[in-house]
Amino acid sequence: MYNLILVRHGRSEWNDLNLFTGWHDCPLMETGRQEARDAAPVLAEANLLPDILHTSVLQRAIETAEIILAGLGRRWIPVRRHWRLNERHYGNLTGLDKAQVGEKHGAEQLRLWRRSYDTPPPPISPDNKYNPATSAAYVDLPPELMPATECLADVLDRLLPYWHDALVPDLRTGRTVMVAAHGNSLRALVKHLDNIGDDEIIDLNIPTGIPLHYAIGEDMRPIDEAHPLDRAVAAQG
Amino acid sequence: MYNLILVRHGRSEWNDLNLFTGWHDCPLMETGRQEARDAAPVLAEANLLPDILHTSVLQRAIETAEIILAGLGRRWIPVRRHWRLNERHYGNLTGLDKAQVGEKHGAEQLRLWRRSYDTPPPPISPDNKYNPATSAAYVDLPPELMPATECLADVLDRLLPYWHDALVPDLRTGRTVMVAAHGNSLRALVKHLDNIGDDEIIDLNIPTGIPLHYAIGEDMRPIDEAHPLDRAVAAQG
Repeated sequence: MYNLILVRHGRSEWNDLNLFTGWHDCPLMETGRQEARDAAPVLAEANLLPDILHTSVLQRAIETAEIILAGLGRRWIPVRRHWRLNERHYGNLTGLDKAQVGEKHGAEQLRLWRRSYDTPPPPISPDNKYNPATSAAYVDLPPELMPATECLADVLDRLLPYWHDALVPDLRTGRTVMVAAHGNSLRALVKHLDNIGDDEIIDLNIPTGIPLHYAIGEDMRPIDEAHPLDRAVAAQG
Repeated sequence: MYNLILVRHGRSEWNDLNLFTGWHDCPLMETGRQEARDAAPVLAEANLLPDILHTSVLQRAIETAEIILAGLGRRWIPVRRHWRLNERHYGNLTGLDKAQVGEKHGAEQLRLWRRSYDTPPPPISPDNKYNPATSAAYVDLPPELMPATECLADVLDRLLPYWHDALVPDLRTGRTVMVAAHGNSLRALVKHLDNIGDDEIIDLNIPTGIPLHYAIGEDMRPIDEAHPLDRAVAAQG
């Protein structure tokens, strides 16, 4: 049996402002840092100590993981970062207010863009000030791989090579693998792991800052349901 | 020309208490965190932006680097951690007060243990409560490689494979390489780079929190003297 821990980053500044964030590299809020501090003792109580860490290249996931590892006294574990773990790219919605988008395009269109499996937002325009294409973080990324927008199906497509080529080999060494990532990159991974249908995934939401533990079998599929490790669960023993 | 940046971690709790630290994993002081925060704009002004980071497995070096990268908006760069970049192992002096060691063994013996090239302290006893041998950070380290004490010559011996096998290949890619490490592991690296004699190294001290920039040539030797990047230097332009 292999141990996989998924953590969605804590609350970020743009979560608080209710803006579409995607690949925009906004920092955590102080409340998000506190979520990360709270996650560390819960992992310790469950005796789930990460041996290796994988993060996206976005600071809200990276800092969440740094805070958890500091709390566990395990800053020394190996770290890998990769854009394939990034949040979904929200295209030209990036930086827009979710409520205003709903008023302009209607609640149903907003829901499809936010939650559906295969409806990407309009592509980001080259002159959009939040276009991440010019960020130094992506200079080594072949331009044909840089998304201009993504639906959840696109996220799963670009995430799966990282699951198979990086996460699975680390799990097979027997090490406890922690992935610190984002609402939609983790939804995509959970969809794959739990074999969730394209129509059902719309109802799945991953809470921020609460580690999700999967016991993974030899077939690299979950042995049973994921266990959310929150304080209430820890208190139940 | 290749760019190498060496940073000694900021002031730690045991620096403040005047204790021999070595492989003991003590945290930074708040003043040490401030040193790291101050280093970021100095690197930015010098246009020396790290593309890849190497740290020891000790949290005072790791946190120093995390703070610098956060200040530069470059948390996303790849990170490698390795015990070969650790501080010198101070053997059974670990956790002892430097002044008390001087009173007991004499100032000359203290100076030799602290600064000489080839005088290791007594080996750490298995029941010393600061013995790092049982730390989870070293479970994958073959026991015959785990030091019980080290002189500076020992540090150079175990550091050089990391220089040749990890740091040099990263430099050759043309990326700016930052190494966040310790007073004595950096003294050993500087001794190698600047070809400093065994008798001269006793006078070399690396200041905390001030990035040291080396321009490295094709022969993987410095083109000229290292440039300390402190605020005064930055102010001179």
